[in-house]
Amino acid sequence: MQLHGYFRSAAAYRVRIALNLKGLTAKHAFRHLRKGEQRAPDYLALNPQGLVPSLELDDGSVITQSLGIIEWLDETFPEPPLLPADRLQRARVRAFAQVIACDTHPVQNLKVLNRLRTLGLSEDAVTDWAAAANREGLTACEQLIAREPGPYCFGPTPTLADLCLVPQLGNARRFGVDLSRFVRLLKAEAVAKVLPEFADAAPEHQPDAE
Amino acid sequence: MQLHGYFRSAAAYRVRIALNLKGLTAKHAFRHLRKGEQRAPDYLALNPQGLVPSLELDDGSVITQSLGIIEWLDETFPEPPLLPADRLQRARVRAFAQVIACDTHPVQNLKVLNRLRTLGLSEDAVTDWAAAANREGLTACEQLIAREPGPYCFGPTPTLADLCLVPQLGNARRFGVDLSRFVRLLKAEAVAKVLPEFADAAPEHQPDAE
Repeated sequence: MQLHGYFRSAAAYRVRIALNLKGLTAKHAFRHLRKGEQRAPDYLALNPQGLVPSLELDDGSVITQSLGIIEWLDETFPEPPLLPADRLQRARVRAFAQVIACDTHPVQNLKVLNRLRTLGLSEDAVTDWAAAANREGLTACEQLIAREPGPYCFGPTPTLADLCLVPQLGNARRFGVDLSRFVRLLKAEAVAKVLPEFADAAPEHQPDAE
Repeated sequence: MQLHGYFRSAAAYRVRIALNLKGLTAKHAFRHLRKGEQRAPDYLALNPQGLVPSLELDDGSVITQSLGIIEWLDETFPEPPLLPADRLQRARVRAFAQVIACDTHPVQNLKVLNRLRTLGLSEDAVTDWAAAANREGLTACEQLIAREPGPYCFGPTPTLADLCLVPQLGNARRFGVDLSRFVRLLKAEAVAKVLPEFADAAPEHQPDAE
């Protein structure tokens, strides 16, 4: 397997954690988003969106979209599970992940922020936009797990929710969001970040980190 | 079951189609997004994001996020399946759905467009923004199923992909996107739209339609 990613992409970071938790070794190809390498013809042939991550399987098949990749990994390599066995709890984990992956991250990704810049917004206004998207998404996430005992987002082991949360908190910090009131989220992050599977997947530990 | 929705919400529309395909009857509660009814305290208690849809189960449990709701419906009421049995094909269906549900729809939803308005963008610029997001997402979707024989997005029956596609094409038309070059997407839409399960779920057939 080969993962096409970028050190700072929160979506690629989610998949790196999943691979580590599953104990899988993948080759890593890096596409430098700020240099536009994700729009090179050879990459667009793999992923017509020109986004990372993409997971290229040994038979040449390609899976795109981080949540889709993680669900495939979980179905293909079931241990340890990244979704709870209980159907309702699975739905809650997926909803939490989608608050981040659908309603938060895409509204503050590089592509959208660049579009705002071309509309003439100042750097401060662009940062405010990104910070607001993070604040809003994380506020919902905090409430979604307020009654979950933890220590992870949903129970005693990491799930898809934690795979989405940890990278997003990194983004929120980059945009200057004050995270202190997200007590429950920070508790989940604290236990996750000390796991080697999360730590090794962090942007600053990737070979393409700047 | 009770579905909290809004006639024009593409995300609620996806869930209405899923309920119909599963042969399920749900009560419908409508939250008028333009009037801000999704931010009423009673609704925020169900869904801290203040977004539609939310599916309220008879035991009081609530599931949020359209893709999470649909996966729960598919796991709970397996027939007819909305995801293929083959793992790789499931991943492709999910990726297609996520191109729409993660990277397209949230970038052009009412909340983001209102944020652009508060930044001083003209109505024309706001519409251009929404049209560009649709064009970009649909361009990727067209390529993702270019080699799929159809007639639906993935094979002979509707899947999660079609549930996302049909509502999104409706949005794209509202924003004036020229859809003529999306030949494969229009083929999938044409077969889906004549099914009563899709037709009955359309925005214009909802009791809250304006």
